[in-house]
Amino acid sequence: MKAYSVKELLKGNHLLQEVAVNGWVKTFRSNRFIALNDGSTLTNIQCVVDFEKFDEKLLKKINTGAAIKVTGTLVESLGKGQNVEIQANEIKIHGEADPEEYPIQPKKHSLEFLREKAHLRVRTNTFAAVMRVRSALAFAIHKYFRENGFYYFHAPIITGSDAEGAGEMFRVTTLSDKNPKLTEEGEVDYKEDFFGKETNLTVSGQLEAEAYAMALGKVYTFGPTFRAENSNTSRHLAEFWMIEPEMAFYDLDANMDLAEDFIKSVIGYVLEHCQEDLQFLEKRLLDEEKTKPQAQRSDMALIEKLKFVSENSFKRVSYTEAIDILRNSKPNKKKKFQYPIDEWGADLQSEHERFLVEKHFKCPVILFDYPAKIKAFYMRLNEDGKTVRAMDILFPGIGEIVGGSQREERLDVLKQKMADLNIPEEELWWYLDLRKFGTAVHSGFGLGFERLVLFATGMGNIRDVIPFPRTPQNAEF
Amino acid sequence: MKAYSVKELLKGNHLLQEVAVNGWVKTFRSNRFIALNDGSTLTNIQCVVDFEKFDEKLLKKINTGAAIKVTGTLVESLGKGQNVEIQANEIKIHGEADPEEYPIQPKKHSLEFLREKAHLRVRTNTFAAVMRVRSALAFAIHKYFRENGFYYFHAPIITGSDAEGAGEMFRVTTLSDKNPKLTEEGEVDYKEDFFGKETNLTVSGQLEAEAYAMALGKVYTFGPTFRAENSNTSRHLAEFWMIEPEMAFYDLDANMDLAEDFIKSVIGYVLEHCQEDLQFLEKRLLDEEKTKPQAQRSDMALIEKLKFVSENSFKRVSYTEAIDILRNSKPNKKKKFQYPIDEWGADLQSEHERFLVEKHFKCPVILFDYPAKIKAFYMRLNEDGKTVRAMDILFPGIGEIVGGSQREERLDVLKQKMADLNIPEEELWWYLDLRKFGTAVHSGFGLGFERLVLFATGMGNIRDVIPFPRTPQNAEF
Repeated sequence: MKAYSVKELLKGNHLLQEVAVNGWVKTFRSNRFIALNDGSTLTNIQCVVDFEKFDEKLLKKINTGAAIKVTGTLVESLGKGQNVEIQANEIKIHGEADPEEYPIQPKKHSLEFLREKAHLRVRTNTFAAVMRVRSALAFAIHKYFRENGFYYFHAPIITGSDAEGAGEMFRVTTLSDKNPKLTEEGEVDYKEDFFGKETNLTVSGQLEAEAYAMALGKVYTFGPTFRAENSNTSRHLAEFWMIEPEMAFYDLDANMDLAEDFIKSVIGYVLEHCQEDLQFLEKRLLDEEKTKPQAQRSDMALIEKLKFVSENSFKRVSYTEAIDILRNSKPNKKKKFQYPIDEWGADLQSEHERFLVEKHFKCPVILFDYPAKIKAFYMRLNEDGKTVRAMDILFPGIGEIVGGSQREERLDVLKQKMADLNIPEEELWWYLDLRKFGTAVHSGFGLGFERLVLFATGMGNIRDVIPFPRTPQNAEF
Repeated sequence: MKAYSVKELLKGNHLLQEVAVNGWVKTFRSNRFIALNDGSTLTNIQCVVDFEKFDEKLLKKINTGAAIKVTGTLVESLGKGQNVEIQANEIKIHGEADPEEYPIQPKKHSLEFLREKAHLRVRTNTFAAVMRVRSALAFAIHKYFRENGFYYFHAPIITGSDAEGAGEMFRVTTLSDKNPKLTEEGEVDYKEDFFGKETNLTVSGQLEAEAYAMALGKVYTFGPTFRAENSNTSRHLAEFWMIEPEMAFYDLDANMDLAEDFIKSVIGYVLEHCQEDLQFLEKRLLDEEKTKPQAQRSDMALIEKLKFVSENSFKRVSYTEAIDILRNSKPNKKKKFQYPIDEWGADLQSEHERFLVEKHFKCPVILFDYPAKIKAFYMRLNEDGKTVRAMDILFPGIGEIVGGSQREERLDVLKQKMADLNIPEEELWWYLDLRKFGTAVHSGFGLGFERLVLFATGMGNIRDVIPFPRTPQNAEF
């Protein structure tokens, strides 16, 4: 007897055939109706049990969470809620789930409770839906880049350079934790370490991606990156996945065009392929927001919001224009901002970004041409000598989802910038080589994958959109 | 003027149009023929320069490695070697490449020399071809799984458990390297570390993938994994990418079927999509092998070998049969094996695997049902009590490319096995939960991505198929 997935059976192609299906019991009502799910899709398949035909002992084992195999005839369903169901002829118990012990019972569990059970929470509808959408988004990303002439590039995870300065790093070592060998100067002798030098976990694959873009033209990374920062917020993880495209011969305008098209395309993909999960997540969000005051609820339901983003142009605003808008804004004049905006040059805080996106423009915003002083050394200096060709994409409810720039391609300007910031040239000799040999205008950006998943699923905490989150004091599983 | 990629122009759709193209100069012959490449494809586009129309100073800058933009008319080519070429009207130099300094000159460089220049080696035809094939293979993997109902799952990279024992691990820490705080017992106080416990880089995402398979049904990982082993061989990296599918309700036979179908499918994808690069790599391999004695040369050329694998069944042989074959083999009887095969139970060495694959069966081989003693604790014990439902896939020239098994789904058997091996239950409480609640037959395997790339490209050293290899004493870039 061939076993099918629930998803396949629900299509109804095997009507009146004998079929088998494996899955986990979601509920077992009235000793008669098993709702069975195998993770292939959100909807359960109903298996109808004529309890007189089965051993009572067996029926007692059909509890929520038990793994079973049902064999029977696929028929049209007369009940509401499903088109087809299985008239069970045979039931095999793979594994029981003691209702006294199994924590994932058919009732509402808080997301906080489920976070402690990260190995089981994916058995709930919410997390299964989130993780299916996450998987679809990841595929959409690869598909988009492949169809647009990009090559997937694996940046190194363990890095010998800490020059980028994007954040605090984790050290990677095989030295003795207590008594590492010291040099004559009394410092740890990293020559004795596995790689013969001090190494860390990468904070970004960008610099290495630039090397590849300057040969293959258009490349992207999609891999884990790390920040050893003590940020316990709903938007930060110590370990997260990042997508970093890097393109030779792209200026900042082309970079912004790409980023916008890319985001719209991948959101469009999940709208097309994940309707069922999105509808479920939309309802979850509506239920959650009912408990909040009106002012904190979303203007749009989840799917409407995704459609809005995928179909409307992002607003492009220079940093200088944004400062003007913020300076003259009501919250600034009424001193409602925690960090009031006085002068050009100020770094924008989350409250400012939210005002621009959620109150002023009410759509995704691309800010560009930031002051050089608040941005990284590798960004291309504008002719004005004080701004750089940087851009950030800000999303409602999420904040910064993309950060990118045109890269400084001029060897002399880059060297000067590094000297100003005390970045030793020896650290980045190979990065300078890219400007020495066949340099050209090039650009790229980074997109935090989990922030995209947050946006697409309507979840509120970044710990709930990655299977096993790593945060300060937490590396369980 | 719209700029096109070289790949797009070579299709010939823009004949007799004014076009622009950016790229890097491969060669500049007779002050007249520029071979230009932008990484989009292996073949260069020829740009024909009427040197009398251009400034001599500009022409002097057109050296190998320089980045330039050529604008001109796309015409049919009369010369051999290309169908179309550009009659250059305008040339802009983006960035020069001083021939006295630029190391990637149009001559043969050794792979060892290029390994020192990992940031520039991708500008050679060989490495560009390898990395394009690598990218295509990665996409083929995602495509295969998505089309077959799998969900992509991101296993954690930083792990708090070191119970799997697949190999030596790298420690991840933010503690002081020299003076970490100690406990009263004089041990390093990991409560003070970032995660509040000792953490390492993962050696495998399998255990976590099992948790997800027991909810989503079929999942796969594709991410970096690490081994802190001092292996300086042509087949080992300290950091490498691994693919690990895990399937609920799959027994070992289904697992072997999947692994074989999967490998054939992704090899088939590159055969279909990377012909040009594969032909180049095939020629490279033939040239390389010309320098070797006849006995060390491959029986088949690269593309023939890939076709053979994608079109023929893998030979399935039990460990017990394999031992019989090896025991009675000529090299064993003539004592040519470094590790002679006497008894059932011996671990197979590379020399034995190579004999089976390359001499005896002359095709990929799946070995299954290994002695429990030489395999990991989580593998499903057979009814004979001495073998486990493990399988390895062995490839010609590569050795083990896949290792997998049916997983032990019985709580009591798994606990006993862990006790025998002194693996504390507290370490893997969540892994045991998977057997406690709704357990079922399930299986999975791991495939080392770089070994697959080695096989598909015909390269000989694993350091040459990953952009920036990490090996003992080497974490440059």
